[in-house]
Amino acid sequence: MEIENIDLFKGITETLTRLNDPGALLVAGVQRPNVMTIGWATIGIIWGMPICVIYVRPSRFTHSLLEKHAEFTVNIPTVEQAAEVMVCGTKSGREMDKFAECKFTLEPGKKIDVGHIKECPIYYECRTVHKNAVVPDGLPHNVRQTYYASGDYHDIYYGEILGVFRNE
Amino acid sequence: MEIENIDLFKGITETLTRLNDPGALLVAGVQRPNVMTIGWATIGIIWGMPICVIYVRPSRFTHSLLEKHAEFTVNIPTVEQAAEVMVCGTKSGREMDKFAECKFTLEPGKKIDVGHIKECPIYYECRTVHKNAVVPDGLPHNVRQTYYASGDYHDIYYGEILGVFRNE
Repeated sequence: MEIENIDLFKGITETLTRLNDPGALLVAGVQRPNVMTIGWATIGIIWGMPICVIYVRPSRFTHSLLEKHAEFTVNIPTVEQAAEVMVCGTKSGREMDKFAECKFTLEPGKKIDVGHIKECPIYYECRTVHKNAVVPDGLPHNVRQTYYASGDYHDIYYGEILGVFRNE
Repeated sequence: MEIENIDLFKGITETLTRLNDPGALLVAGVQRPNVMTIGWATIGIIWGMPICVIYVRPSRFTHSLLEKHAEFTVNIPTVEQAAEVMVCGTKSGREMDKFAECKFTLEPGKKIDVGHIKECPIYYECRTVHKNAVVPDGLPHNVRQTYYASGDYHDIYYGEILGVFRNE
């Protein structure tokens, strides 16, 4: 399997389309890595750097991993991997090894210490350079009702994109 | 001149490439609109909505306009419009009408009350649904030194993308 470093924004239409359906796969953690499904992210340029911004609730196992080690990968699955994406979005890594459950191969990072999923066609290697949080005040009422009925407002991690790779 | 509503993420490679060089043009304000150059933005999905995130320092004239009226457009210029982008990035709308200076035509919005620039090939109509701010703690030292030597940390506006249009 060859891995090719692709143009930064070349895969972005595919990335955002897959993020919307079936979702993307966020990998964090070094000693005890985990994968969780994300449906939200933004990509662009901040501070002159290519940046991928992710949203993780404090209650998540992945949150504790991001707090311990400031690197992550965002893996873009195919539509055929919807079942695996569902598992990674409904089970907690505290209770199971989701890589094994999904038959995902965790490959070592190229520029970071966090791995990526061999079976996903595109992945982003990122290092957190900034963190803030969703501010409840001013959010539309329906957003608060739909996503924050029990609080747990997302922390927001800004990852410098160190590389975008395609698994051939 | 026909205006076509294009697929949400269809123009995104062009958008992020132009954002990087020569920059994009942010229009805000209804009674007294203004245009400023931005080199930073991220685009993606949050809260199940297509979102364009922009970064504006509190000292900017545009900041006061965004605080008064929660809508904006992001206009994507051509590389040939680099001179106009330079004007909009170095002059303040407090002191001049930058639309007149750049011979830009401000056309009325389709879904919002803020206008867009007829001469730019692509534009995004957005309504702010969330605001937070850059948090100084934890920013890399070189980022603080390069961008925040005098403070004025950016406020961050999350605009729901209501439409992406191409000026033909």
